[in-house]
Amino acid sequence: MPATFPSLAALRAAGRDLPPPDAAAAAQVAARQAQLTKPAGSLGRLEDIVAWLARWQGHAPRLERVEVLVFAGNHGVTAQGVSAYPAAVTAQMVANFAAGGAAINQLARVAGAKLRVIPLALDQPTQDFTQAPAMDEPSFLAAVAAGYDAVAADADLVCLGEMGIGNTTAAAALAAALFGGGGARWAGRGTGVDEAGLARKRAVIDAALARHAALRDDPLALAAALGGRELAAILGATLAARARRIPVLLDGFVATAAAAPLARLRPDALDHALAAHVSAEAAHRALLAELKLAPLLDLGMRLGEASGAALAVTLLRAALACHDGMATFAQAGVANKDD
Amino acid sequence: MPATFPSLAALRAAGRDLPPPDAAAAAQVAARQAQLTKPAGSLGRLEDIVAWLARWQGHAPRLERVEVLVFAGNHGVTAQGVSAYPAAVTAQMVANFAAGGAAINQLARVAGAKLRVIPLALDQPTQDFTQAPAMDEPSFLAAVAAGYDAVAADADLVCLGEMGIGNTTAAAALAAALFGGGGARWAGRGTGVDEAGLARKRAVIDAALARHAALRDDPLALAAALGGRELAAILGATLAARARRIPVLLDGFVATAAAAPLARLRPDALDHALAAHVSAEAAHRALLAELKLAPLLDLGMRLGEASGAALAVTLLRAALACHDGMATFAQAGVANKDD
Repeated sequence: MPATFPSLAALRAAGRDLPPPDAAAAAQVAARQAQLTKPAGSLGRLEDIVAWLARWQGHAPRLERVEVLVFAGNHGVTAQGVSAYPAAVTAQMVANFAAGGAAINQLARVAGAKLRVIPLALDQPTQDFTQAPAMDEPSFLAAVAAGYDAVAADADLVCLGEMGIGNTTAAAALAAALFGGGGARWAGRGTGVDEAGLARKRAVIDAALARHAALRDDPLALAAALGGRELAAILGATLAARARRIPVLLDGFVATAAAAPLARLRPDALDHALAAHVSAEAAHRALLAELKLAPLLDLGMRLGEASGAALAVTLLRAALACHDGMATFAQAGVANKDD
Repeated sequence: MPATFPSLAALRAAGRDLPPPDAAAAAQVAARQAQLTKPAGSLGRLEDIVAWLARWQGHAPRLERVEVLVFAGNHGVTAQGVSAYPAAVTAQMVANFAAGGAAINQLARVAGAKLRVIPLALDQPTQDFTQAPAMDEPSFLAAVAAGYDAVAADADLVCLGEMGIGNTTAAAALAAALFGGGGARWAGRGTGVDEAGLARKRAVIDAALARHAALRDDPLALAAALGGRELAAILGATLAARARRIPVLLDGFVATAAAAPLARLRPDALDHALAAHVSAEAAHRALLAELKLAPLLDLGMRLGEASGAALAVTLLRAALACHDGMATFAQAGVANKDD
């Protein structure tokens, strides 16, 4: 049965009713790690990753079914000249995804992940949020539900990313509304705007914040007013993954901003999510710090499309391979530190 | 014919006679990158990696034959109580590598790389370098030659790592001698020594620096006096890779310190090498800064065994998959920024 959220209040309630981690599954991982033929802790975050997978999957960690979900949307705010590319590129890139020609096609293949691209009413851009809320409540809730339903119940891991010309402006406006600081703090160059474009982005964000100031204490209303359909879908998918015990890899600045309203509803709402990377979009580092998310990769990427998330899947596979495949000290006849 | 270096002078000459990068191969990569369906530069270091592969391979980049070389050696300085593990663990771990039970076995498999482990006279530990040079000149040159010969001429990429109880002390002493600063700057916890062990490491390094102070301006003599057989072999393998146009991924602190004398012979001697990661061994970050190497990964790993290097291979494969597999703007019918 497809998810339906009849109101923001219903979605808010769902965002506050979250399953806890499985401490027993994580403890089993830790007990095995302590016996493997390496100094304790010497695989660093690879060890943390495996415990995190177990904690949120609720069983021995596995990565058999890994899905990459890329949500696409169009943005009325592009009328303000905030992107280096025309809005038509969103649909063109969706076609490129379908044809296998984009970066994410290659990265998903290397990661052993299944790519699904979900375009969201590309012929109906959101409203220019300097003039009106980006989405009315039904449109926002429908996009959230589309994201929620895109998460397969039997996935072992979900990578969440996006495509949408203009959406770094939406993400920056949403981050600014959630965490304070205005356009100067949150606007970046996106796909590559020049100085004048960057100044326009800052001004657009500040205008949007002023227009929607009354919503300041309602994270979901802010997501509707300042976000976009693909951001709403990422929020829904993040929520679905938690409910279905599926760990999440968040991609870059836009995906992180999209999920951020959940953390304002409940501080631990993103504990089942890892930041796959910190992007070169300048505000991403600040946003991750606000959310206390430590990125796995820092490679100067700024493409979106879930590219950073798919790349990080390879780290997770390596971590799990060590956990599953290594010999214990006893099996290998290697002296442990405390022997 | 096996490599022979009859003298330090002959090795020094080889270290100064290095082939340059292939600018044309790198330019071909850059020209293609500019046409792929992504904003210019948006894959960040993934783009740099592909250009670097081409620059040093001297042709269109490829990663068909990837080798992981792990050199193992034993260290007389372990008599000073500088490691949390007994020296016998070096040979036990070599057996574990052979049986497939170590982290590097799993990581090499995930990376699609062939693992080769080269034990170097494990029954003949180096001298305790607080008392004498670790190796005499023939022993050092033989270990360098063993490393040199371990590099297959048709490899597309070589990952260099090590195993040797006590070798973070050797690496720290060598780094201190090459770059200054003493035991306080360069000693770390290695496999996990306690405070008292760390204090002993610092004192041991300072004693070694005092004993071998006369060698200060001779990087290769320092490598013989303060290093170890596995470090010497990594130096030889790094040099062989340059001569044979094979890019190198250096693993952690010990591998980086092992190659560092080459950079003192010629500032560009490590341009064909990337730092796969920065380890949790505290001095690694300082050493990478001295060598102007920017690590690809920062995951708190401190295992050695080429584990970080093998993990980084997956990033290189992803980078190359994007480069080779993506559509151009023209092929995909996507509007470019400047259209």
